[in-house]
Amino acid sequence: MSSTWNNNITFSVFGESHGPAIGVCIDNVPPGETLDMDKLMQFMARRAPKKDKTSTQRREKDMPQIMSGFFNGKTTGTPLCALIQNTDQHSQDYSNLSKLARPGHADYTGALRYRGFNDQRGGGHFSGRLTAPLCFAGAVAGQILEKRGIYIGAHISEIHKIKDDSFDPIRTSRDDIISLSEKEFPTISDAKGRRMVADIEKARMNQDSVGGVIECIAINVPAGIGSPIFDGLENSIAQLIFGIPAVKGLEFGAGFNSAKMLGSENNDEFYVNENGHVVTRTNFHGGILGGISSGMPITLRVAFKPTPSISRPQQTVDYSAMKNETLVIKGRHDPCVVPRAVPCVEAAVNIAVLNHMLQYPNF
Amino acid sequence: MSSTWNNNITFSVFGESHGPAIGVCIDNVPPGETLDMDKLMQFMARRAPKKDKTSTQRREKDMPQIMSGFFNGKTTGTPLCALIQNTDQHSQDYSNLSKLARPGHADYTGALRYRGFNDQRGGGHFSGRLTAPLCFAGAVAGQILEKRGIYIGAHISEIHKIKDDSFDPIRTSRDDIISLSEKEFPTISDAKGRRMVADIEKARMNQDSVGGVIECIAINVPAGIGSPIFDGLENSIAQLIFGIPAVKGLEFGAGFNSAKMLGSENNDEFYVNENGHVVTRTNFHGGILGGISSGMPITLRVAFKPTPSISRPQQTVDYSAMKNETLVIKGRHDPCVVPRAVPCVEAAVNIAVLNHMLQYPNF
Amino acid sequence: MSSTWNNNITFSVFGESHGPAIGVCIDNVPPGETLDMDKLMQFMARRAPKKDKTSTQRREKDMPQIMSGFFNGKTTGTPLCALIQNTDQHSQDYSNLSKLARPGHADYTGALRYRGFNDQRGGGHFSGRLTAPLCFAGAVAGQILEKRGIYIGAHISEIHKIKDDSFDPIRTSRDDIISLSEKEFPTISDAKGRRMVADIEKARMNQDSVGGVIECIAINVPAGIGSPIFDGLENSIAQLIFGIPAVKGLEFGAGFNSAKMLGSENNDEFYVNENGHVVTRTNFHGGILGGISSGMPITLRVAFKPTPSISRPQQTVDYSAMKNETLVIKGRHDPCVVPRAVPCVEAAVNIAVLNHMLQYPNF
Amino acid sequence: MSSTWNNNITFSVFGESHGPAIGVCIDNVPPGETLDMDKLMQFMARRAPKKDKTSTQRREKDMPQIMSGFFNGKTTGTPLCALIQNTDQHSQDYSNLSKLARPGHADYTGALRYRGFNDQRGGGHFSGRLTAPLCFAGAVAGQILEKRGIYIGAHISEIHKIKDDSFDPIRTSRDDIISLSEKEFPTISDAKGRRMVADIEKARMNQDSVGGVIECIAINVPAGIGSPIFDGLENSIAQLIFGIPAVKGLEFGAGFNSAKMLGSENNDEFYVNENGHVVTRTNFHGGILGGISSGMPITLRVAFKPTPSISRPQQTVDYSAMKNETLVIKGRHDPCVVPRAVPCVEAAVNIAVLNHMLQYPNF
Repeated sequence: MSSTWNNNITFSVFGESHGPAIGVCIDNVPPGETLDMDKLMQFMARRAPKKDKTSTQRREKDMPQIMSGFFNGKTTGTPLCALIQNTDQHSQDYSNLSKLARPGHADYTGALRYRGFNDQRGGGHFSGRLTAPLCFAGAVAGQILEKRGIYIGAHISEIHKIKDDSFDPIRTSRDDIISLSEKEFPTISDAKGRRMVADIEKARMNQDSVGGVIECIAINVPAGIGSPIFDGLENSIAQLIFGIPAVKGLEFGAGFNSAKMLGSENNDEFYVNENGHVVTRTNFHGGILGGISSGMPITLRVAFKPTPSISRPQQTVDYSAMKNETLVIKGRHDPCVVPRAVPCVEAAVNIAVLNHMLQYPNF
Repeated sequence: MSSTWNNNITFSVFGESHGPAIGVCIDNVPPGETLDMDKLMQFMARRAPKKDKTSTQRREKDMPQIMSGFFNGKTTGTPLCALIQNTDQHSQDYSNLSKLARPGHADYTGALRYRGFNDQRGGGHFSGRLTAPLCFAGAVAGQILEKRGIYIGAHISEIHKIKDDSFDPIRTSRDDIISLSEKEFPTISDAKGRRMVADIEKARMNQDSVGGVIECIAINVPAGIGSPIFDGLENSIAQLIFGIPAVKGLEFGAGFNSAKMLGSENNDEFYVNENGHVVTRTNFHGGILGGISSGMPITLRVAFKPTPSISRPQQTVDYSAMKNETLVIKGRHDPCVVPRAVPCVEAAVNIAVLNHMLQYPNF
Repeated sequence: MSSTWNNNITFSVFGESHGPAIGVCIDNVPPGETLDMDKLMQFMARRAPKKDKTSTQRREKDMPQIMSGFFNGKTTGTPLCALIQNTDQHSQDYSNLSKLARPGHADYTGALRYRGFNDQRGGGHFSGRLTAPLCFAGAVAGQILEKRGIYIGAHISEIHKIKDDSFDPIRTSRDDIISLSEKEFPTISDAKGRRMVADIEKARMNQDSVGGVIECIAINVPAGIGSPIFDGLENSIAQLIFGIPAVKGLEFGAGFNSAKMLGSENNDEFYVNENGHVVTRTNFHGGILGGISSGMPITLRVAFKPTPSISRPQQTVDYSAMKNETLVIKGRHDPCVVPRAVPCVEAAVNIAVLNHMLQYPNF
Repeated sequence: MSSTWNNNITFSVFGESHGPAIGVCIDNVPPGETLDMDKLMQFMARRAPKKDKTSTQRREKDMPQIMSGFFNGKTTGTPLCALIQNTDQHSQDYSNLSKLARPGHADYTGALRYRGFNDQRGGGHFSGRLTAPLCFAGAVAGQILEKRGIYIGAHISEIHKIKDDSFDPIRTSRDDIISLSEKEFPTISDAKGRRMVADIEKARMNQDSVGGVIECIAINVPAGIGSPIFDGLENSIAQLIFGIPAVKGLEFGAGFNSAKMLGSENNDEFYVNENGHVVTRTNFHGGILGGISSGMPITLRVAFKPTPSISRPQQTVDYSAMKNETLVIKGRHDPCVVPRAVPCVEAAVNIAVLNHMLQYPNF
């Protein structure tokens, strides 16, 4: 199913960028969980267009209305459906896109898949706007996890060729995570963040865009969560992360670097720590072994391509007439999707972790 | 479900390294497909332990016996089950592993997940041996795809710090793919392959191991295959690829490099080619846009960590007694899993592509 | 998942009787299907409370608002979400139900399942009102099937001890089905229908309620649709039918009567008819053999218990205080749910048949 | 998927009547459960052909070989696969069936579904023999449930027009269930059982067959198990029960009789019993309300049509030549499948109940 994720938790994302509303229906949320709606709105606001120049000028309140599954301030256990009205569409801006395939977008592939019947205004169901319902679901999952002491956070690890510092894969704390979530531009090093902001602005001035990498960490996930082979934590996280538009790569722990290492370097030796817990001295495995959490922080990095919507003229095809054309994209677009994608990555990991937590008796 | 993949095709992998047999049950294979059993055995032989020194000295025939779903030389459409007997176990070699967590393995996490009841001999259900049934399923899928002109192949792209040449993301041909599949050590450049073999041998002599990267390509996948959000080609491939032990990263097209690029560099411009087909001049998108095939070759790279089983003494814990211990791993192990993982990566992609092909009327 | 049906079509029903809205999200509707909204509203109106005395006095417009998946008068192929606002709740009528388990209702079992956190006003997620989104999905499926010549209809076969005539299992026509759908009280024999109406009214006057049976038929379903064992037409229909509140039994073809027959009576002999089609002389098998359609009409009967909400005083428990109490149910309730359940049964069969049709190349 | 059931437990049934083997792969069996193999064989022996004249003369040991998921006498938690070799095929008996559709069988519908490629010998994948792996899975589930005090049993409730007594829906005990499971011909009244045996023998002498009804009960299922709408106990049981060949109807509690009742008769009043438990005075609801267990015994009845294989000449079609023919079925067949279907019904209910038990923290 294109837009349904079916595991211990099932959730369906629906809607099109310029339709009446987008939303999400989540099945198997545990009952009796309080939701702090202010905190939920703060989470979603991190995904919403920024007021500065790093992102699109489009403004949306992105105010989710809960239709079901929430009663007297708590989840009911029955399906939780939230709706986000679309209120600020400028549909006319997209009028010349109807037949011209925007390079790097799903216009052409989507038209083939749906035989031309899909709503292509603003990307339709393929729009990055569909990450808003993902963030709603992720915010709910995150609040449930935080009550169990599990914190999941992310930062902008790279923009173009500028790198931020990395999470400490052993000692990153709850406070580190909360502090990042409160930053307007979430980098560990503020100085590097400022260089990134300048680089994004430079791309915007050049009618261009830049890509980047987001690093995510999950702390205090109990050991023993997940399953081997096709239902491990990596598989679930991967299936959700590749649901975020523009993602081109994903790695856990040392990731692609582990391919350059010797076994004697990459193996994380176990020891019993001062609290009597089994831990590892290093964390190249990224907190997951055999699809199952080891109790060490779960670490992952997600690569995003540059925003495909750039305002420079581009060569492309009119796929209805099957002829070559020049395209000039109007409308408002982020010169870099990475800052707004930070909560999306967190949301995907929140959902995957909660999903596997539900399977265990001690939840 | 830990070991079941449920999509248009459902398949379940079962078995433990030292149990009576391992195998696979595949549901929804199309009926009436001929299977060339010699070719199928050749595919599986590429995963089997090699006779040279790059891999484990354990020998298994890995001869799949088809139990169902195959009649008069053709698939029946009903579940296809194949069994591979385990015939060459040396269980005593693993006797001291019962309580010592091998670093980089799932011994500890698996014991927690299954409360100590899982068969841990040789890794049990977490063993790399479970990729044999994956390869069986992948070989079946591959033969069905090849009849539709779709070819999927892979090569060793990196070992430790040595890099092979890359697939041409536009012009890689059926012959290129077949030629690679016939090589003992599948690299594009034989010279670089020899350097890799030497490096692996050096690691083995040092009681160490090395990791690497596999690059895979799928050509002639028709445009319009896949779905947005959670059921795209990337999601399906990712869910299967992360089912292969030791995988730590996955990228499509330009992958992590796209994060370093400008939009104007990374966007693949469309044009109508001399045959009247919509194609792109470059292929940084790796043949997938919005989860759906563009008709360009699908390209991906998979990072493998070094084999965690090394014969050097390692510090670890006895997790039953919760105390620190020194571990010496006996038994026979690959100093590098990457050469044998090449058909596993192909198998995962074969299954994912066939899975999405089945959804389309023109299959 | 409690409220998600996951097959070729996935759909999720959400909402509570007295929450802001109820609705449905349907994934994998084929693209490019026109929907006649007037006809869709007529279908849903058959489920809505009647103006006569056979049903509850509660009035709801039950006007579905389509949020996504529908563009320019056609389905897009992306998820189709429809919302139905709840506008006419009288929540105070249910105030004394908070702790008293209504006999025959899910108050007690639901409170256990959701640890008391579910919204119990008016039955909450267990309310018969949740059949409105089912009917929306069924109406959509029905329109898609009718364009392929497949017609599905139902009538009230029994109320209390009064029986209607039966569908002709061989010769029931499209006109028979359309004619029934236009009746206020859909029986084949109007005389028997009038007796049923009188019986329902009598129950209402006695502060009581009655049950009944609905018979459903699907004509022109092509032979070869469905699958053996767990994914046959019977399995799918059963899983959906038992999702309608108050259903206690389901039979196909001769059903429970076939248990009383000899093989020589019950076997439906095949012959090639004058049009060169394989058909059967009798239709005790109800159009399904081995889970797969035979091309003969699909016939089924669904048993409904009497409405559990009756206004007579009943003995029950206060399950929060764990003591015995007397309950008097106020509010407005149908003395018989069967008339309004007729389109619900059709909806379930529509969805199941479309679901299996999607799997076939010639759809 | 035709032969995969995917819920909290996933299991796949595979094989054909005359192929090398049939079997089952069960995913998500809880780890650490002891299995009594003698008891498991006794369960399966109840399904195996009887030595008397009520069933087919074909003899099979039906000895399941466990391939995985079972170690040191306990389940491991990883997939449990069992294989049953086919050893006693008389394939030549079926030689004339290749093109003639046996009335009441899936020969014709199966050939359409699988475009003629399915193995049709002895019914192939549609054979009643495929209930052996179902029984294996059910026997495993049953042993796990019995350790939690849950007992599930069934008896022959009707054969042709002869009725057995019914289970007491309130007071049926563990001993009643065990005693039935030990009977060669499981009826509550031995006298009625003897009349049934005579009736079956009479049908056999007349080259005919008879149908019947099986009643099943599950005691001590805790209240609160199951979910509303599509994932209730009724839905799960129904999906599995309709996977047993020849089933034509299913009812819970008062079932079709409830359609004849008044609400005041059918409603089961709750009270707090002497042990402080919430129970009902009557059990017309059959232990399930809103898809969720009430704590009362779960009761259901399953209708089976007469064995379609009868040795009298029958009119049918040769569907390859599309002409009318006369068929004489040779081979050995049960004049009544009902006695051997008793453990199959229990198996389906065992699996459904265990499946929903797994979702609960107190399992």
